[in-house]
This record gives sequence, C-alpha cells and structure tokens, in this order.
Amino acid sequence: MSNHWLQNVIESIADRGRELIGLDSNENKNQDIHSLCQQLLNGAGEASGIALSQQILREYHNMSDEKKFNFYQLLDQQFAPDFEKIQAVMARYQASRSTEDLIALNTAVEAPRQELFRRLNMAPKGTASLVALRADLLRQLKKSPSFKSIDADLKHLLSSWFNRGFLQLRLINWQSPAEILEKIINYEAVHEIRGWDDLRRRLMKDRRCFAFFHPAMPDEPLIFVEVALVKGLSDEVGSLINPKAAELDPQQADTAIFYSINNTQAGLRGISFGNFLIKQVLTELTKECPWIKISSTLSPIPGFRRALDKWLDSDEKSAQHREFDSILHQHAAALLDEVRAQLSASTDLTDKQCLAALLRNHLSQENISQGNILTELALSFLSFAKSKGQLADPVAMFHLSNGACLERINPFANMSEHGQQTSYGVMVNYLYDLNTVELNHEAFVTKGKIKMSDTLYKIFKKFNRTTA
Amino acid sequence: MSNHWLQNVIESIADRGRELIGLDSNENKNQDIHSLCQQLLNGAGEASGIALSQQILREYHNMSDEKKFNFYQLLDQQFAPDFEKIQAVMARYQASRSTEDLIALNTAVEAPRQELFRRLNMAPKGTASLVALRADLLRQLKKSPSFKSIDADLKHLLSSWFNRGFLQLRLINWQSPAEILEKIINYEAVHEIRGWDDLRRRLMKDRRCFAFFHPAMPDEPLIFVEVALVKGLSDEVGSLINPKAAELDPQQADTAIFYSINNTQAGLRGISFGNFLIKQVLTELTKECPWIKISSTLSPIPGFRRALDKWLDSDEKSAQHREFDSILHQHAAALLDEVRAQLSASTDLTDKQCLAALLRNHLSQENISQGNILTELALSFLSFAKSKGQLADPVAMFHLSNGACLERINPFANMSEHGQQTSYGVMVNYLYDLNTVELNHEAFVTKGKIKMSDTLYKIFKKFNRTTA
Amino acid sequence: MSNHWLQNVIESIADRGRELIGLDSNENKNQDIHSLCQQLLNGAGEASGIALSQQILREYHNMSDEKKFNFYQLLDQQFAPDFEKIQAVMARYQASRSTEDLIALNTAVEAPRQELFRRLNMAPKGTASLVALRADLLRQLKKSPSFKSIDADLKHLLSSWFNRGFLQLRLINWQSPAEILEKIINYEAVHEIRGWDDLRRRLMKDRRCFAFFHPAMPDEPLIFVEVALVKGLSDEVGSLINPKAAELDPQQADTAIFYSINNTQAGLRGISFGNFLIKQVLTELTKECPWIKISSTLSPIPGFRRALDKWLDSDEKSAQHREFDSILHQHAAALLDEVRAQLSASTDLTDKQCLAALLRNHLSQENISQGNILTELALSFLSFAKSKGQLADPVAMFHLSNGACLERINPFANMSEHGQQTSYGVMVNYLYDLNTVELNHEAFVTKGKIKMSDTLYKIFKKFNRTTA
Amino acid sequence: MSNHWLQNVIESIADRGRELIGLDSNENKNQDIHSLCQQLLNGAGEASGIALSQQILREYHNMSDEKKFNFYQLLDQQFAPDFEKIQAVMARYQASRSTEDLIALNTAVEAPRQELFRRLNMAPKGTASLVALRADLLRQLKKSPSFKSIDADLKHLLSSWFNRGFLQLRLINWQSPAEILEKIINYEAVHEIRGWDDLRRRLMKDRRCFAFFHPAMPDEPLIFVEVALVKGLSDEVGSLINPKAAELDPQQADTAIFYSINNTQAGLRGISFGNFLIKQVLTELTKECPWIKISSTLSPIPGFRRALDKWLDSDEKSAQHREFDSILHQHAAALLDEVRAQLSASTDLTDKQCLAALLRNHLSQENISQGNILTELALSFLSFAKSKGQLADPVAMFHLSNGACLERINPFANMSEHGQQTSYGVMVNYLYDLNTVELNHEAFVTKGKIKMSDTLYKIFKKFNRTTA
Repeated sequence: MSNHWLQNVIESIADRGRELIGLDSNENKNQDIHSLCQQLLNGAGEASGIALSQQILREYHNMSDEKKFNFYQLLDQQFAPDFEKIQAVMARYQASRSTEDLIALNTAVEAPRQELFRRLNMAPKGTASLVALRADLLRQLKKSPSFKSIDADLKHLLSSWFNRGFLQLRLINWQSPAEILEKIINYEAVHEIRGWDDLRRRLMKDRRCFAFFHPAMPDEPLIFVEVALVKGLSDEVGSLINPKAAELDPQQADTAIFYSINNTQAGLRGISFGNFLIKQVLTELTKECPWIKISSTLSPIPGFRRALDKWLDSDEKSAQHREFDSILHQHAAALLDEVRAQLSASTDLTDKQCLAALLRNHLSQENISQGNILTELALSFLSFAKSKGQLADPVAMFHLSNGACLERINPFANMSEHGQQTSYGVMVNYLYDLNTVELNHEAFVTKGKIKMSDTLYKIFKKFNRTTA
Repeated sequence: MSNHWLQNVIESIADRGRELIGLDSNENKNQDIHSLCQQLLNGAGEASGIALSQQILREYHNMSDEKKFNFYQLLDQQFAPDFEKIQAVMARYQASRSTEDLIALNTAVEAPRQELFRRLNMAPKGTASLVALRADLLRQLKKSPSFKSIDADLKHLLSSWFNRGFLQLRLINWQSPAEILEKIINYEAVHEIRGWDDLRRRLMKDRRCFAFFHPAMPDEPLIFVEVALVKGLSDEVGSLINPKAAELDPQQADTAIFYSINNTQAGLRGISFGNFLIKQVLTELTKECPWIKISSTLSPIPGFRRALDKWLDSDEKSAQHREFDSILHQHAAALLDEVRAQLSASTDLTDKQCLAALLRNHLSQENISQGNILTELALSFLSFAKSKGQLADPVAMFHLSNGACLERINPFANMSEHGQQTSYGVMVNYLYDLNTVELNHEAFVTKGKIKMSDTLYKIFKKFNRTTA
Repeated sequence: MSNHWLQNVIESIADRGRELIGLDSNENKNQDIHSLCQQLLNGAGEASGIALSQQILREYHNMSDEKKFNFYQLLDQQFAPDFEKIQAVMARYQASRSTEDLIALNTAVEAPRQELFRRLNMAPKGTASLVALRADLLRQLKKSPSFKSIDADLKHLLSSWFNRGFLQLRLINWQSPAEILEKIINYEAVHEIRGWDDLRRRLMKDRRCFAFFHPAMPDEPLIFVEVALVKGLSDEVGSLINPKAAELDPQQADTAIFYSINNTQAGLRGISFGNFLIKQVLTELTKECPWIKISSTLSPIPGFRRALDKWLDSDEKSAQHREFDSILHQHAAALLDEVRAQLSASTDLTDKQCLAALLRNHLSQENISQGNILTELALSFLSFAKSKGQLADPVAMFHLSNGACLERINPFANMSEHGQQTSYGVMVNYLYDLNTVELNHEAFVTKGKIKMSDTLYKIFKKFNRTTA
Repeated sequence: MSNHWLQNVIESIADRGRELIGLDSNENKNQDIHSLCQQLLNGAGEASGIALSQQILREYHNMSDEKKFNFYQLLDQQFAPDFEKIQAVMARYQASRSTEDLIALNTAVEAPRQELFRRLNMAPKGTASLVALRADLLRQLKKSPSFKSIDADLKHLLSSWFNRGFLQLRLINWQSPAEILEKIINYEAVHEIRGWDDLRRRLMKDRRCFAFFHPAMPDEPLIFVEVALVKGLSDEVGSLINPKAAELDPQQADTAIFYSINNTQAGLRGISFGNFLIKQVLTELTKECPWIKISSTLSPIPGFRRALDKWLDSDEKSAQHREFDSILHQHAAALLDEVRAQLSASTDLTDKQCLAALLRNHLSQENISQGNILTELALSFLSFAKSKGQLADPVAMFHLSNGACLERINPFANMSEHGQQTSYGVMVNYLYDLNTVELNHEAFVTKGKIKMSDTLYKIFKKFNRTTA
C-alpha cells in the first residue's frame, strides 16, 4: 500500500512538473523527443525532470516500431560518446597517467545516453519502462550494427540496478494478489498453466512457487521457479502438472522437484538470476522442510530431437554424429529385430531408418529397450554436443555450471506433443546438493568435467572406450 | 517483517557458502584479502560468492585505519584499469571506430574494482557496508592522490544505485519503530534533539518529519526534513524547537516551515537528495493540508559571522568587504551615537569597532536599528560573497538553485550559543512556491539572478546604487 | 502474515494440550462429547482448554446430520438453565430485590451452553466454527421446538461478538489475495460471477467492491457490496454486469450504483450488517470521488411476479388485489386494443387474460405502454403489499427503513431468465442521500411514510384517489 | 495503517451523523445524556447511531467524578431490568416452561444498559471508552451497593468481547512503534522502567517482551510479560533489570526467567489473561529457542513482610502464627547467639525481638543462617497463610493454580528498598514445565496440593511433623 501511495506522490510531482514546463499545452506537443531528451540531460530541476522523463517515456511507449527505430538512431548518433573528446582525453591521460585524467577518460567514454537512462528512471514506473525499452531494442538489434552499443549501455545499467543484493525473494501462493498470480499464469512458458484451476493445483501444500522481485517493480515477478514435493525422484512430468493430481501431505515427501523455471523479462536478457534463485529456494526449503533430503530438477533437453533427426537424416560425421553412430551400432541387431517385427516391415530398412521409425511411430509404447537407447543417445548428446565451445544444450550448461549433478535421464518423461517434438519425450534430473555444488561447479568450469551419477557414468565410460 | 526474513535467508546462504569454501576453518583465516577479492572477482558461484563478499566486508569492517589505508592501496593498484590494455583497445578503436571496439573501450576503462564493489553488494547488508566504506575512504582521501579514482568509482556506482527512482519517502511519526526514531535523534545536526521528549514534540500534530529510504537499507533514513505547521512566516527558530511549545491545531496553520534538513550518510556525499525531498514533501503537504498556502524554510547562514568578523578585523578590500564598508558607512552616524551611549564608551572607537562591540555585546537586546544593519549585512553577504564562482553560502546556493525565493532575513532568529557563534543570530526564510520554482531555478542557473521579495529587493537595489 | 503466525501458536498450544489430556490416545477416543463439554465447562486449564475446544469442534465437524441433531438435544437438555434454580433465585429476588439477587438471577437464567460456546471460541478458528454450527442448527431448527432456545443463545453471543464496532471495512480489488476473490465469486448470489474474467471486470477502475471482515475470521468476507461508477442513473443491470462492458474513466462518472449486496454467512442470519455497509461505503466514495453526486441501488423486486401471477389467476379481493384491479381498469381499453391487435387474438379474452398474455409473451418488445403499466403495478406492489405488518418486499423494506428514497421503477431492467421469472424484468432504484436518510428513516419507521420521487409520487397519489 | 484509515472512516460517519441529528447545534447542547441514551437505545439509524454513541462517550469523558456518579445512578435506575416485567414473564414461564418463555425471561432479565453498552461500542474507540468507563466505575463502586449490578453487566460484556480467542500475541522489541513502547514504560509496575535506555536493555537479544492486544484496541497492550534468557535459574532480580548488564548471546542461555507480568487495564479487572499469556509465550520460546530447557518466574511475595511483622509484634495464635512460632523455636538458640553477638545487645531480648532486629537491621549482610530462616518463614507463609479459603499470597495462588511448581525460595533476591519493604528481599521461582502443568493444576485445584521441589518439600515435611 505504501508503494502505491508513493507512486501517487511521484505522479503528482510529475503532473505538477508537466504543468510547469507546459508539456500539456499545445505549443509543446510538437516539441520533438530529441529536444526533450536534451532538456532532461541538461539538468532541469526535480519537478520538471520527473515530468520530462514521464513525457519522454510516454511518447516512446506510443511510438510505432518504425518511430522507435528512429529513436534508437537518435540515441546512437546524438547521445553517443564524443570521439574527438575521447581522443583528446586519451592523449592527455597517456601523457600524464594521472588520476584526474583517468577519471576524465571514464567520463568521456561513457555515452551520454547512460545518464539519460538514469534520469528517465525518475519517472513513475521508470525502471519498468527502461526494461521494456530494452526488450523493444533487442527485437530491432539486428537492423543496425551500432545499436549493440546502446544495448551494451542499457545492459550495463540494468545489471547494476538488478544486482542480486537488491532482489527480494517472495513465496507465491493462493494468498498472493490476483494481479501477481495472473502474471504467473501468463509468464509460464515451460509447462503451460491452463487457467486458475490449474494454477491453484500448483500452489497447494505439496507445491511451492518462489519468485524474485525488484523493489522498483513490486508487482512484477522477474523469475520464478515451481517446485513439487514428492516421494522419490520424479521420472516423468505429467503427474507434477496434472491439475487433478492428488495432494500429498508435505510431511510425507522426501524429494523436491524443480520442474519449471521461467525468466519473465525479455528486457533483462543476459542478466542471470536463475542460479541465485535455485540456491536461495534450496536454502528456504531446507529450513521449512528439513525432512526433505533430495532436491533435483526435472528438465527438458530442448534441442535433442533436432540433433537426433539431423543425424538420422544425414551422412555427416561430426563428433556428436560418431557417438550416435556408435550407440546405434551397439544396439543395432536387437533394434532391427524389434522394429521389423513391430512394423512387419520390409527388411531392407537401414538401421538408421529403423531407429527413426521406432522413435517417430512407436515411442508411446514405452518399451524398455527403446528407453535404453534413448537414454544413451540423450547422454551422448548432453555430454558431447558442443556449440561455440560450450555444451550445446543450454539447460545442461546452466545446471552443470551451477554445480548440479547429472543424476538421471528419463525416457518417456514428457509424452506431451511438445515433449515429443523437442526431445522424443526424454527429460533429465539435475540433482542439487548444497554440499557438493561448489566442487562440481569448480570441476566443470575449470576442467569441463561433468559430475554424473554412477549409473550414468558407467554408460558414459562405455562411450569413451568405444570412441577412443 | 518480510525484509528481515529475507535478510535471514541471505545470511543462511552466506553461512552455507562460508562452510563450503572453508572460510571458517583455520587454514583459510590467513588467506589475505587480496586473494579473497581476486577469488570473488573471478566468479565464484552464488553460494560462495555471497560468503566471500560477507567475509571480505567483515574483515574490512574490523580493520584499523592503517589497514584500511593498505586496502585502499590494494584497490588502487591491483584493481585499477590496465593501462596497456586501454592503450591497445584505444588504438583499435581509433582505427575502426566500430561499435565493438567502443564497447571494448568502455570495458577496458572501467576499473575492475567497480565489478568488485558490485559483487560485494550481494552480501547481507552489502549496500550499507559499501556506503560505510566510502565514508571511511573520504576520511583518508587526502593521504594519496590516486584514491580519488577509487572514490570516483564508488560515487559513480552509488549514484546509480541511489537513483531518485529507487528512493522511498516515508512519514516519520510517533508510530514509527523506535530504532528509526533513535537514528533521527542521533542524526539531527542542525537543531539538536535532546532525548525522546524533545523528539516527541517534533512529531506532534503540528509537526511533520519525512525521510527518504532506500530499499536495500530499510532501517536507515538517508535524509530527513523537519517541518513545523505554524501561523505566519516564522522569524525565529526558538519556538519551533522548544519541547514545551504549545501544540497548534494543524487546521489553524497557514504556513509550513522547513526548519531542519539533514543528510545522514557521509558515504553518500555529493549525491544530492535534498532538492527531491523538499519538493516531494511540498507535494505531500499540499495534498494533506490544502489550506496551507505558504511553504518556506527557516535556514542558517553558516559562514556569516566568520566573514563579518574577518572584515571587522581586517583592512582588506575585497568586493564583499566593499559592500560591508558601504553599509557601515550609511549607518555610521546613528551607530556611533547609539553604541557610545550604551557603552558610555570612549569616543575614540572607530566605526568598525563600534559595530563589533555592538554585535558582540549587545545583540541580545534585539534593538531595531541593530536588526536593520544585521539584515543589510546578511543580504549583502548572501548575494555578493562568492567562492569558486558560486555563492559562498552553501545553504543559499542550495535553495536558490532549487528555485526558492530569498523571502526574508531575520535578525535575532537564533539566539542560541551556536546561532550567535555562526551568524550573529541571523536566519533566512527561503520561500518555495511550486508555481515559480522552475522560473526562479532557470533564472538563477542561467543568469545568476537571485529571486527575492520586494522588501529585500529594495535594500538590494540600494547596494547596487552605492556600489555601482 | 502475523495472523497466520498467531494461528500457528494457538494450534501449537492446542496440540500440546491434546497430548497432555491424552486426547490422541486410544482410551480417550471413546470419551463422549458430553463428557468433553462437561470437562471444558468445569474449567480445565488453558492448555487443555484450547485442546478440548478443538477436539469438541472437530468431532462436531465430522458428525452426520443425525449425530448433530443428537448434539443439539444434548445442548438443549444438559446445558440449559436449571429451572429449579431459577425458581429459587427468583423467589429470593422477589423477596429482597437486592443487587446480589438480581446478579444471581442473571446467572441462573443464562444457559450454561453460552459459557460453553464462549470457551469453544478459544480453539483455532473457533469463531468460524461457531458460526458454522449455527448455520447447521438453523437447518434443523424446525425438528424440535426447543432448539430455538439454543439458537437464541448463539445469536445473542454472535450479535455481541460481531458488533459493528469490531467490523473492518476492506476494499476488494485485483490486488486482493486470490483466496478472498475466490470466495467473492462463490458467494455472489444476486448476479452470478462466471469465473475470473467476469470477476476481473467487476474490479476495474469504474467498479468498487467493499466487504466487512471480522478480526477473528480474517479470510472471510461477511458481507460485500458491488458498486458501478456510471454516467446517469442506471435503468437496467445488463450493462453493469457485462464482462465485456467498456471501462469508464471514473472521473467521468456522476453516479454510484450499488447493484449487488450479499450476506455470506448463513450462521449470522438475523445479525444485520447491510445498513452499516452501505453507509460506510457511501462515506468512502464521497471521500475518494467527491465529484460523484448521486448514489443509488439498482435492486430486484423478488416476489413481484408471484404476486402478480396470483392475482391474474385468482378472484380474490385483497387490498393489494384491489389496487391491481384498479390499475388494470384504467389501462384496460388501450391494453385490450394493443394486445388483441398483437395477438390477432379472439376478442373473448378478459382484460386480465390480455394482460397475462402481454406480460408472458411480449415483454421483450419493451413497449412503452407496457412499461407504464409495469411501473404502476410494481409501485402498487411495493407500497401496498404487506406481510406481517411490514412491506411484503424485503428489499424495499431494507432500503426504505435505511432511509433511502424510492426513486425510480425500471421496467425491462433485468431481462435475464431469472429477472423475468421473478419480477417480469422490473428493477428499482433506491436513492441514498446522506443528508436525508435520517429524516426518511424516521418518517418510515414512525409513520410508515415511504419517501419517493416526485414522478412516482404523482402515480402514487392517483392510486390513493382511486382507492379512497 | 489500514486501521487508521478505518478509524477515519468511522469518524467521518460519526461526524456526518452528528450533523444530521443536529448534535453540534446549540439547541441540542442542552439535551441531557439521559435522552441521548434513550434515543440510542430506541434504535436510531447507523449514521446517527455512531454519532450518538460518540456524543455520549465524549460527554461522559468530560464529566467530573460527581457527574459520573450521577450517570451511574442513571444507568442503575433507568436502564435496569423491569421488575414487574420479570415477574410477569417468570409467572408465564413457570406455568408453560416453554422455550419462548425462557427466551423471553432471558430478555426480561437482561438490563437494557447491556444493549446500551453494545451500541456505545460502535463509536470510534468505543471499546477503549467502555473499558475506561468500567475503570471509573470501579473507583466509585463502594458509593452505592447497586452499582455492583452495572459492574456485573459491564464485566459480563467485556469478558465476552475479550475472549481469549480474540486476543493477539505480539512480540515487543526495538522495532515496535514508539507509541507502544512508551506505554510499556508507563505500565510497568513490578520493576519500574526508568526511561528509554532502561527499556532498550530490556528489549535486547537476551530479553523478550510479549503482549496481548485486542483488535479493537490495536495500540494498547492489555497485559505484557518480560522474560530474561539467562544461564542457570536466577536467584536475584538485580542483574535482570540492570540497564548496564552485559548482553548474553541467547544461544548460551539455558533458562528463561519470567521476571515481570503486568496487567495494564484497570477496566478489565477480574478478566484474566495471565495464564494464557505465560503458556503461549512458553510455546513461542520453545519454538524459537528449543535449546532453552527451563522456564521459571522470579516472583515477589507481596504480603510477606506485613504478615511477618504482624506476628513479630503480636501475641496472636493463628495457624500461620503457630507455624512461625515453631520455625523460630527451632532456630532460636543459634539466632540468639548470632544476633546478640552482632548487636552486642542486652540478653533480655526475646527470641522474637532478636529475629526482628536481625531482619530489620542486618539483612544486607546476606548471612547464610539468615537465609535459611527467611526461606523457611517464606515457605511457611506461602503454603499455610490463607485468606477466604485461598492462599493468602495472590502471586503464589496465580502460578500454582496455573500448574507451576514452587521451585525455589531466594532470600536476598530483591534488596531494593521496595523489595525489603514488602518481603524482606525474598523472591520465589515458580517453575513452568508444560509436561506437568496440567497434573499440578489438577492436584492443586482439586486437592489443594502444592507441587514443590524436593528441596523445599523436605523443609515442608519438617513443618508438618512439628505442627502435627
């Protein structure tokens, strides 16, 4: 409530300021945004400063994409650092290497638009508007190479403002304001929430939902995680998100499954909160439910099917492909028999074609031998597929670099349309143990070692032998 | 309450992290702060990141001034930007003038300690600790010229974090937590609060106290203003701060007197909130008490007596001195008679000596003619005394550049020991009218014009004639 | 949050007490509720007192209707006042007429179950349980005449506890907890809320919803009112409850329409909050939106159609019937022509039959002459139909005794199935003007005078002439 | 904040109502309080009802004691139950014994002033005003025997409203509003709090303060308890209330000492919360500090010295006196020697005179043998002194009937002036163990058995032998 009150005050000041600088009168309507920005930067007083900020952000908000593009060009050309000045100061600094000149160089190098952004932040809901501005900018980033510089400035500023030390963790439950819950429904992108009844199930006593908020955007969850308290490590997601699932007494649970994490703000892309959130929630759960001993995710493998299909359809021989070949080779005889029997198919299918048929047509039978090969293929993909020197799978990259352990691969874990389309239904448990995360993190980051369970490690070693 | 809860969680994470990285064990105790900072900067995970930050800030907190000096040297030498790299990137940028190289230059120029400070902010109460660190640094700033660069980095960061858009205005009253009220007592430096009874009077129905808070320092008022709702423009401060003063029904008041503004955080020096605070409180009061038509300060003139005494004791002929001479000249005959009569004094006192005797010995008689000359001298001081191109009096500089009007000069306004020691008891009303602040601000900033009341302007014009 | 914390503490005490008195062990399971109640009444200590209360309320909660009946019999027979004792004390009092004996008589007359109820209130959620108990009892009230005495005791107690001085008004909006909003959806019985989207429309900026809460039932709205801010006095309800209705800027509104009031607790029947709520909300709106000049309900006439149909079908000659006859008589000629024309109907329909046909078949054409006769019939019903000496229409009785003015009768105002089934679609505006409510209330209560608008009064006077 | 807002609304309604019924105009000023009460009881509408209540309570508030006396007479004579009616209804009930007549009898017996009080409760701060009214009444209770009946009505009502189920426990600490803390300072009557510094010590980390509040008096602690977390069972109070006492890390504490309990509202006399408070706080502490194993009071023996002095000065032979005689007899020889040696006193002092001299003059030497006899005398007083069939010492009565154990008697425990004046410095530890309170309570209430520690029981048995 005090926040709304404050909002009112700020808006009052803004209104007052708008009057003072005549922003509501006709003659000023045509004042272009360039001159407004210039005025703001040149240091108008508080009253008109807030009003100017609000006016600029409103005008920006109402712009078409085209006009926004023009505005970015303005930021790029008119509010960039002054090359001549940089050169001059740099020359001075090179000569003197004095503190004063270093400070001057810092100032010279910083684009004036950074100060402009800082002043825009004074407007009511200024922070949210700047986050939205960056989201817009990212959509047009490729239209002009120099926009990257604007983005770098914005990201630098937002990284500083959304410092972990300023974030507030809040429990989301059925007592939360409807306004927040509605956003949770809308923002959930991993496992869609189909309306209020579905949401309600996800907020019952055997579920938890936590979100980070920033004090300047108190109604806006920045990232949230959904957790299910269950018995035993979940190997499929259906029962976790089924709105009709029976409620478990949390005292009976022994495992916390993190089954969905969502970043909500496109404008904060590249500013990572997930690592913080998971560990803070782990700490919370340890306090609230000390009897829960195991914490793990149940995570998707977004690019798995694409990679697999590509291999099935191609003759390439990348490292990843060689792994897949080798796995197929080991399972070939059994597979050929099985699939041909099932398909009553002609015997002239290649092994690859058999595997493709099996995956595409018969996955839903949840056959154990299929599970085995899916597990092996997924493990291979997760551990060997690389992109730009990092693991190709961003989810694996995220959890493993956080220090999680690759605990288990679950075939048939997400048999929804979407699950099959992206990963032939396979999901992964990344296990979080606060006692080992640092070691795992260290080993992964410095030596690229993936910590995995004994079971998976046995399979993994088999690859190494065969691929060696 | 939710904040304390959050604090607990963060501390839990920190504790856990400390365990993990073995910070509590003996072998690590000797790990020096340099290597801890290096570790933090090299990107430890969340858990150990928070723990490291906390450890560093604790060690810093317990350092002697000498060790702190060493720590600043460390920041200065080991966490400064890399000159070679700046040169290299600059050379590239000069050649390419590309976006990428501009971004790279920004990165190269930014001191690594900025990122270090940002990471330290993750610790429990990190923000408050960094503000304290800067306060410490400022005290040792003169010991090494290059410390200015550290200060510039800290100030840059804190300016961004304490952006006006993040500050929250709160009313302070008798329902406020004792912890906050105790700080108000301790921080009040303009008109000392002598204990809880004195404070209570300042929080009654005809008084208001407002403060700005930052969400990361929820128990710490950053700046606060005390306001008295009175009948008529106050011409002396005694009745405003008298703990026994009768309470006025606020409905009977027509004037709001801002009689004390205090910045509380030495570590935020140079990051100005006062302007914002005054105008936001004005807006608040306008809403709550629309019947109050006049808002004004009752402000000190901190350097007035020093300037006056210097002139009385010297033969210099600075511009300011010429003004004083001229005023004395006009009042000389009357003064000589009056003082000599009072002192039964020998007639060989010079005019200056008479004035000095009068000021020093007989001020308490509150004689009208003394009032006149004090008013003229003060007006002269306020409008002509300059320092580094600005008005010499910082209070006048502050309010006039905010757009206030120099409304009235009150001799005998603060007859306390302190009041007489600093300004021969003279105080000033700076009047704030939201309808004219922008115009006044503009005129003052661009043309140096001081907006003053008709009465004062008549005296002011007299100077101009005489000094012309 | 602090309430939940408190709840936890109370439950802890209750749990502890339950252990102490062995309520969880087997041997006590069979202890019957009679002896538990007796124990509680005989003054067990705090710990076991809370535990006993909780145990009794839990057992009661799990009883079948039949067992509850038995429990009421227990309350009736074992916890009633002692007749012999009343007689004895009364005899003493008659002789002495002393203060002591009067106090003793009060004690003797009060049923011990009142003290039992007061002690049951100590249990976690005790108050809510007692309200539920009374709701249950009311359903079985007719099964035994002496249950009325239990109900009288409960009602006496609850009236005292739900004293107006303890109720808290809260604004319900989209920031309210989902738990509360879900209850609003479920409790709305006047104009059904069809899910969350429908609810959301009713909480937008041109709508208001206020509820009374009791501190001991903080999650339970006891009564709530829904208000629409509109332009002009609404004459039909469809646009007010249409989830797709365009949103009006509240600044543009000039009228507040109270279109739905719901009591939510069957167990508080006969304890009236509506009067308080309406006037408190009026005061609230006057403060928040001083530009809104008119406040009125748009109310149903629940028994209108039943009364009308009865008359159309009968030959009775009650006072009400004579009014209806007379109105029909005045409109007969026009009606006969109109209806016969419309029906191409045989001319041998009686006037009553014509009217019945018109009402039943052709209402939806919203013909003005139909409107006139509906208005007259409704006004006649509202002002003359009586039941047990009061107005037959409870809604009219409620608002008129609150001091509202019968402002306007709107035919075709609620053309929903339900609206036509209950009142041939007619609704009423009762206008609330805080300046006249007391006078109107007084005139209505003491002299039975209904305050009505000039327009309606002209029609009303016509009746009086004709019926005189 | 929401509470204040609500308060405002209620006051607005009251103001509005006052206008409506002309309470502010001159002609009504003289309307006497009798007719105002009559009006309120006869059922004015909500608006004027609240206004009337407020008017009556204000007038009452401003009355002199004499006028208040007249008001009580009014309540006694004009708002008492109607004797004739009671007789008539009773006659009917005796004949019919019907439910209806029982209900009617209840109604007839209830004084109309009860309903008057319930309606007065609607006024802003009505509940607090009624509590104050009862406090006033209690002061004049003896002036008229029939006032007891008014008090009985008020107490009945307040008991119902201040039902344990409505009370809220709150932790009081340095974050609490100054307004509440100021009341704690003023209300503390057991061990005076000498200003804010003293208070602050009592709110540090090794201290706890808890209070009960009622939702209708949110700023008013009804009862509060102060607890010290210490090492070992405290045997003297000085170190607990010393504002300079060193702070103990609560983790080091093993014992919670309840050293002060204060009821704050004279108007709630006879409505007991202490029992509830102690046990709820015990439950709280058990949760927060599970490592604290022992909970005990350190309590005064208010009437001990008076009883002892009376015996020393008299020749009476009451049961208590016989005990004291016997104890003196056993210690006589030793005492004579000791005292006479110390006093160099004449040998003709009787044993009693020796004891008196010893107690009055030499207590501060804290001699062990004095301690022994003080302990025995106090134990004798606590266990044998009776008044109206109950233990004479109200503190012992309170804790023992709550189920506490008489654990230890501490001579020299409160050597302050007040401590020596009331109990020759002796204090008592009553130990609370939630596992035995019910048993102890039961044994005390039903059989009069005092649960005491083995050490004290050994002494106690000695009495029994000697007194048998």
